[in-house]
Amino acid sequence: MRDEFRAELQAVSQLLVDMAEGVRTAMRQATRALLTADRQAAEAVIAGDAEIDGVYRQVEERVCDLLARQAPVATDLRMVITALHVAADLERMGDLADHVAKTSLRRHPSPAVPAELRPVFTDMAEIADRMAVKIGKVLGAPDAALAAELDRDDDAMDDLHKSLFGVLLDDDWPYGVETAIDATLLGRFYERFADHAVNAGEHVVYLITGENTPAAS
Amino acid sequence: MRDEFRAELQAVSQLLVDMAEGVRTAMRQATRALLTADRQAAEAVIAGDAEIDGVYRQVEERVCDLLARQAPVATDLRMVITALHVAADLERMGDLADHVAKTSLRRHPSPAVPAELRPVFTDMAEIADRMAVKIGKVLGAPDAALAAELDRDDDAMDDLHKSLFGVLLDDDWPYGVETAIDATLLGRFYERFADHAVNAGEHVVYLITGENTPAAS
Repeated sequence: MRDEFRAELQAVSQLLVDMAEGVRTAMRQATRALLTADRQAAEAVIAGDAEIDGVYRQVEERVCDLLARQAPVATDLRMVITALHVAADLERMGDLADHVAKTSLRRHPSPAVPAELRPVFTDMAEIADRMAVKIGKVLGAPDAALAAELDRDDDAMDDLHKSLFGVLLDDDWPYGVETAIDATLLGRFYERFADHAVNAGEHVVYLITGENTPAAS
Repeated sequence: MRDEFRAELQAVSQLLVDMAEGVRTAMRQATRALLTADRQAAEAVIAGDAEIDGVYRQVEERVCDLLARQAPVATDLRMVITALHVAADLERMGDLADHVAKTSLRRHPSPAVPAELRPVFTDMAEIADRMAVKIGKVLGAPDAALAAELDRDDDAMDDLHKSLFGVLLDDDWPYGVETAIDATLLGRFYERFADHAVNAGEHVVYLITGENTPAAS
């Protein structure tokens, strides 16, 4: 029974690692679509989101199965419930990559992001990518120190988000309201991607250290 | 055992109804703060969000307790897991009300929303309110027809969201980029509030009818 539980939980963990990899790829492709007006990349993200959703469903099914057949308690139960939370965060990260891809398609063949904003979105995308990698690693081999780094990454993301508004609100901003709206939403998508990565990381830390789970994302 | 399970699940349901009421109040107050630059209302929302988060934690604790002590299977298990999903949606709806309140505070004592946008935000807030009421009712007494209405409400919300961009992108838009950024984010907060209400409703419908649970929010 114990070995069976471990094996089933391991299978769920592997699905979460797969989701983290899928979500990382999705955001990388979405950023390429955004910065190079690459229609194929955007379409790949949108098609891929259904796959991520599919893995999410699998996690849910396996968790329900595991709860029904093993009736875990205490720490075991906590681990199973945590897997559900992490899966929900990863699923949402996939949606956000999908939103970035769709924004780039809406403006195609024009770029959705003008030259002045490319540096800040390049930096936001780089942090998002780093965070997705860390989530994958932490899920593969729980590591509280690595998970804690996600908080610092998120601070850097928040700083970039603020600097994005600085560019938009500069008196010299030449692009008008439509581009500002796109940039505002895109900034929010990257920032929320980071928030969900932090959330997922906090759930894993909670498992390792018993420290409080996040109440809000 | 069976009676105990029912009683415990009933207690969880009651917490969800409480959360739905809390979230409804929060969004009403946040809208008042937004449309009348009412600082006290905004502060009440922000303070109240901690309470909603507290109820969310209680739901999680009770669900874990219930799983550990009752080890439900089949439909019973599905109901318990659904409660977790619904609680997560409601918690997020509370966050979104909090974001609306904070946006109004950032511009206080000026109104964050200019006269031209008051009608669309008034309408969005009205739909959000209607949806929050329905979620509360559906949680109190599962009703697939009422839950299905949430989809139509969400369509109306999406139409308003589009018309908001219509106002912002009108050549006559006199307010510049800063107000457009605020309006873009505010529009997103109301629209996401509606999405989570739909999601919560779909989870309840799934319980009643066995129809597919939503994969993505």
